[in-house]
Amino acid sequence: MPDKNNDFLSLCLRGTSQVFFMENVVTGFLFFAAMAVASYTTGVWATTIGAAVGIVVATGTAQLLDYDKESITSGLFGFNGVLVGAALPTFVAASPQLWVYIVFGAAASTVVTAAFGATLTKSWGVPGSTGPFVLTGWLLVAGAYSFGGLEVIGDTPHFATDYAQGVVKIPSYIEMVQIFFRNIGQVFLLGSEFSGAIILLGIFLASVPAGIAAALGSLIAGVVAVGMEADPSVVLQGLYGFSPVLTALAVGVIFIKTSMKVALYAVVATVVTVFIQGGLDVIMDPDGLPSFTAPYVLTMYLFIAPKRFLAPHPHRPVVHYPAHKAAAAAASSK
Amino acid sequence: MPDKNNDFLSLCLRGTSQVFFMENVVTGFLFFAAMAVASYTTGVWATTIGAAVGIVVATGTAQLLDYDKESITSGLFGFNGVLVGAALPTFVAASPQLWVYIVFGAAASTVVTAAFGATLTKSWGVPGSTGPFVLTGWLLVAGAYSFGGLEVIGDTPHFATDYAQGVVKIPSYIEMVQIFFRNIGQVFLLGSEFSGAIILLGIFLASVPAGIAAALGSLIAGVVAVGMEADPSVVLQGLYGFSPVLTALAVGVIFIKTSMKVALYAVVATVVTVFIQGGLDVIMDPDGLPSFTAPYVLTMYLFIAPKRFLAPHPHRPVVHYPAHKAAAAAASSK
Amino acid sequence: MPDKNNDFLSLCLRGTSQVFFMENVVTGFLFFAAMAVASYTTGVWATTIGAAVGIVVATGTAQLLDYDKESITSGLFGFNGVLVGAALPTFVAASPQLWVYIVFGAAASTVVTAAFGATLTKSWGVPGSTGPFVLTGWLLVAGAYSFGGLEVIGDTPHFATDYAQGVVKIPSYIEMVQIFFRNIGQVFLLGSEFSGAIILLGIFLASVPAGIAAALGSLIAGVVAVGMEADPSVVLQGLYGFSPVLTALAVGVIFIKTSMKVALYAVVATVVTVFIQGGLDVIMDPDGLPSFTAPYVLTMYLFIAPKRFLAPHPHRPVVHYPAHKAAAAAASSK
Repeated sequence: MPDKNNDFLSLCLRGTSQVFFMENVVTGFLFFAAMAVASYTTGVWATTIGAAVGIVVATGTAQLLDYDKESITSGLFGFNGVLVGAALPTFVAASPQLWVYIVFGAAASTVVTAAFGATLTKSWGVPGSTGPFVLTGWLLVAGAYSFGGLEVIGDTPHFATDYAQGVVKIPSYIEMVQIFFRNIGQVFLLGSEFSGAIILLGIFLASVPAGIAAALGSLIAGVVAVGMEADPSVVLQGLYGFSPVLTALAVGVIFIKTSMKVALYAVVATVVTVFIQGGLDVIMDPDGLPSFTAPYVLTMYLFIAPKRFLAPHPHRPVVHYPAHKAAAAAASSK
Repeated sequence: MPDKNNDFLSLCLRGTSQVFFMENVVTGFLFFAAMAVASYTTGVWATTIGAAVGIVVATGTAQLLDYDKESITSGLFGFNGVLVGAALPTFVAASPQLWVYIVFGAAASTVVTAAFGATLTKSWGVPGSTGPFVLTGWLLVAGAYSFGGLEVIGDTPHFATDYAQGVVKIPSYIEMVQIFFRNIGQVFLLGSEFSGAIILLGIFLASVPAGIAAALGSLIAGVVAVGMEADPSVVLQGLYGFSPVLTALAVGVIFIKTSMKVALYAVVATVVTVFIQGGLDVIMDPDGLPSFTAPYVLTMYLFIAPKRFLAPHPHRPVVHYPAHKAAAAAASSK
Repeated sequence: MPDKNNDFLSLCLRGTSQVFFMENVVTGFLFFAAMAVASYTTGVWATTIGAAVGIVVATGTAQLLDYDKESITSGLFGFNGVLVGAALPTFVAASPQLWVYIVFGAAASTVVTAAFGATLTKSWGVPGSTGPFVLTGWLLVAGAYSFGGLEVIGDTPHFATDYAQGVVKIPSYIEMVQIFFRNIGQVFLLGSEFSGAIILLGIFLASVPAGIAAALGSLIAGVVAVGMEADPSVVLQGLYGFSPVLTALAVGVIFIKTSMKVALYAVVATVVTVFIQGGLDVIMDPDGLPSFTAPYVLTMYLFIAPKRFLAPHPHRPVVHYPAHKAAAAAASSK
């Protein structure tokens, strides 16, 4: 890859673009612009600054640990760190301890990315993707309940049934547009439709098929969430769409070569991701944790793993219990 | 396998029989009869119809995805789908969205079966068994709390301590017979002793050793559950026995060649499954989820994995940290 | 290893010493002395007796199953059993059923150790370490809520937010000393600083570098826990320190060859373990379960796995969907 800029800033922006599987400095810049727009709107800059700290620490950690150079250059060690850095200030109020948390969390996300690569990817060809962010984020947000120096913002632990179901309604046209773009923005934990539009622009700049897949994923997610009568206020925030958007991209375009059959496969995966979103939200409720991109991660792992498909285990006793033999062999060799 | 009928109906019935590791059309037919008997008793036909939809969709999905033909013929891609189809109407009230849920759930169960085959089975020789049903079922039942179009029937999320322990008592003779057969019927989520008897008949028809193992598993589970003073009303429904029955079969007869030592090994595994049943029930309580066959799945995975046993990792620093070397090698090769 | 005593008592004491990665009969004896001191103080002898039963049953089970002789001799099949035996009476009141539980639990811990060895270790070089204890312990303590014959002592299921945060304060000098030694003692679930001192002595007897790592791990954990403003009463019991102590040992000395860089790596891992301790405590709260050594186990797995590092999965569609080809090949070969 001789045409790549390998200065640290480029690595960081490329890593940021990898949140959507892109490898493009301009796209990464637009993603930061989308975060800044949301911070400007809400007045909360800790998320954007956290994301910047996250990408710098995660990328730097990969360099310090002498991880695979090509992967670092592609930004593959950065995207989990940028998400950790953006997510922690979204769910934990700013404090000195929060910044310690972000620095160690982003560094850890790089190690976890390497661990996923050395296990899931090495053995089964399953990409770790944002799994390391989900794992790191869950542990750290949960930890914030334990530490007096950290205060969790938003939903505390509760049972799924403690919250009334919202009144079902069909969204208006303007709401449909908001949902469409927020579904994309929420991948970066941004509830702003403007941020979502900038992010979608960034994806199209890097790859037109990826942009189309993201747009279709957002549409499908919106239709399914409304059809299943999910809580309208949650749907409106884009919280039913960000994981399906990633699934549509990953399964439809990124990790499998696109074809008609694969497109249909990706549609099924995208619909299933909406169901799993509803399920994981409930499962994480008692721990007071958001599901992050876990619905996407889980669906993608399951739909990508069979690409190297072997027959499942036949149900017949073909295997002799080998302990005796092993022991006999061990004994005789001494 | 030249003597096999390979029409779609045979594939579906064979897949149904695979819930108990059998590969027998008549057995599959009897299992459906057992479900119909229970539906006739309760008046709820959605479970039997759901099971039929589940087996058709799961088997058809495997064909559409061109999965391994021999495995499809053996029914190995169907048994998780039939369980998803039977379980969802057991825990979610009928609605248009439920049927959408069953169709996508059964299709997903086939993909998940393939994913388990490509990972657990490929790398470690551990059969996925009903693990894909458990995973798919948990996510979908949990999701039902999120969607207004779906209503969960039965236990909602709670703490394990929110329910009083039942009064301990030794079951009467008639109750012992009920427990014995219900322990088998509950594998198909059926609380009817008649259904359990039909299922046991179906197993004996396909394999006498398997029938004996199932019966012994049910006996052991009953004795252990009563001895540990589990809630008698739960024991009476057969809910402490269905996972141990599967463990007894899987560990004692199906996946390891039977011997005296293996029989003892299977007894320990069966007893442990009763303990894990108690444990997983408690662990799933806050999420409002049943443990399904997870106690069996977990026990079986753990007791089957060591059959290809290697020594555990020795506790000494034998491994140099190779990052430097790897980086040096990578750098020098450019 | 010709100089090893291979009588059963030596295997058991060596297995006990393996809780801290040692392989030393005298160290194992001192660890039992530490448990006895704590039992003498509290008057509760079930923990020490349970530990003895656990190590005997776990080691004996490994012999009965003809597991790898060298591993049995090194004590690698015993340390999870001794922890199961010590932990169950710590969280479950003594009763006849408790002792059944301990015997089957310790036997199961040996099988689970073999299962972890045949999967994690075989495929990825990740040691199972005390993971089998954590898994077995969680399932059995959870099960105790289900069985009338078992009564859980201590914290019942609750939300993390149901307990008020303690008042933050800097520990006094005497408290600092208590925390330092209790952080080590709690690996054996012992809240006594005298027990912790005996254990640390045992480690130093077997390995000076290991003793130094344990001491530094305890120091780091104390500083981080206080700095994050964790509940002082929990910190004082040593409950924020035992997992970090194990991480410091495992990552800094045992599983990776020590160097300056590895030492820094181990410090980061140790700090992260404190955060994960806070997180897992919260995550296990609704199930009414302690986190045991899970914070160490999880951190160690993640920080050790990348030592055989490969590049993560590149984000490009390099893989054709092979199902068609596989099916075609399968069809043509018939």
